[in-house]
Amino acid sequence: MNNEVTNYLLAYENMKIIQRKDMFNFSLDTVLLAHFCTINKDLNAIVDFGTNNAAIPLLLSRRTDKKIIGVEIQKDAVDLAIKNVELNQLGDQIEIVHSDIKDYVKEQKKVKLVVCNPPFFKVGERSNLNDNEYLQIARHEIKINLEEIVQSAAAILDNKGRFAMVHRPDRMIEIINCMQKYDIEPKRIRFVYPKVGKDSHIFLIEGMYKGNKGVKIEAPLYAHEDDGSYSAEVRKMFGEDEHE
Amino acid sequence: MNNEVTNYLLAYENMKIIQRKDMFNFSLDTVLLAHFCTINKDLNAIVDFGTNNAAIPLLLSRRTDKKIIGVEIQKDAVDLAIKNVELNQLGDQIEIVHSDIKDYVKEQKKVKLVVCNPPFFKVGERSNLNDNEYLQIARHEIKINLEEIVQSAAAILDNKGRFAMVHRPDRMIEIINCMQKYDIEPKRIRFVYPKVGKDSHIFLIEGMYKGNKGVKIEAPLYAHEDDGSYSAEVRKMFGEDEHE
Repeated sequence: MNNEVTNYLLAYENMKIIQRKDMFNFSLDTVLLAHFCTINKDLNAIVDFGTNNAAIPLLLSRRTDKKIIGVEIQKDAVDLAIKNVELNQLGDQIEIVHSDIKDYVKEQKKVKLVVCNPPFFKVGERSNLNDNEYLQIARHEIKINLEEIVQSAAAILDNKGRFAMVHRPDRMIEIINCMQKYDIEPKRIRFVYPKVGKDSHIFLIEGMYKGNKGVKIEAPLYAHEDDGSYSAEVRKMFGEDEHE
Repeated sequence: MNNEVTNYLLAYENMKIIQRKDMFNFSLDTVLLAHFCTINKDLNAIVDFGTNNAAIPLLLSRRTDKKIIGVEIQKDAVDLAIKNVELNQLGDQIEIVHSDIKDYVKEQKKVKLVVCNPPFFKVGERSNLNDNEYLQIARHEIKINLEEIVQSAAAILDNKGRFAMVHRPDRMIEIINCMQKYDIEPKRIRFVYPKVGKDSHIFLIEGMYKGNKGVKIEAPLYAHEDDGSYSAEVRKMFGEDEHE
């Protein structure tokens, strides 16, 4: 298959991922979300909305042995995701489903955790003329928008089940409004800052379906050191620190 | 007058404040809010809801020469506030009004900025049996609650006027909901953390009346160093650094 490259997803654990240069590649957002979401013993299964090449299910498999289901609308991404599950011998734990999220949730058992690294931009916003269709769909709300994602999560969440998402802070208020509209109460928020002294550029939010009111703002996370290198906390998430 | 003590409000600027041991004393929250709110050339006047002993108007007088009005419901606090304005010879700039906020806003000119360090706790919540009536009113929503404060701010805000508040992060979602209900769109939020690695314990929020959507999450502020002393940024707000 043209354009395929194999990268390390977790360097020191020998977890590899096949990606295509012309498609969405996993990024810091992906890694942050996989580390942020609450994994506890109540979990039955985890659903990842818009799993693309399965980076989030692969990372989550290091935190839990419960079933992980990645849902993806793009056929070429589904093919890559399946290859990646096989490459890491995780076929018993990770299932990849080729489906529109909105259709997928129509007839599903309730789950305790849904995660999503969604398209950040509205249609027409910050469009990059160089983006191909793969990237347009991954970055812009073409196939699904914020409200449809949250509504879909609410549709398959068990009572007190959690929904975790990574997004841009400038849309935080809209996201809170939308989660509450579908009875997902924000419980944990963590802001990520590019470096000390800068405004937040990424944030992580987790809500609870039919949860009580009251949110916790967790310690800030700095992505980079002053010299531009990844911070120690981020390097650890990339699996680079523990075995040094 | 019994129980009165004179403290420095800004150490190196010789700004003093008379406080009473049995009443609310200015705190970090007060100082943070006075530094956080946007002061720009569009300002006509600033109104401080629940000004108590006038700590916020005194601090704001170092950032602007526009009129500042402190509204306070407790007569003994009003007396202290007037004394403090006189002590600092700020009678031309600061006006103290003895009134219930809800009554004050009924017949006022529109202003460009309202600030408030409100009671943080609901009635009955975290009540401290040792608190006297002064402290109960300052800390608990006895005379006014969150919604009435926000509604009162909206009532006197000019179009695109700002409302800035300090509060506890666990009530952030409720505050956002409430501001939006009265057409004040959150535009700037800054979280304060007790120290590195801890959850936020204070936050600052500023909204704009009839403002556009889109919020900015500003750089985190740490209140303390690891050894428990105030951080350099906070010491500067207390006026302690500049002349060292």
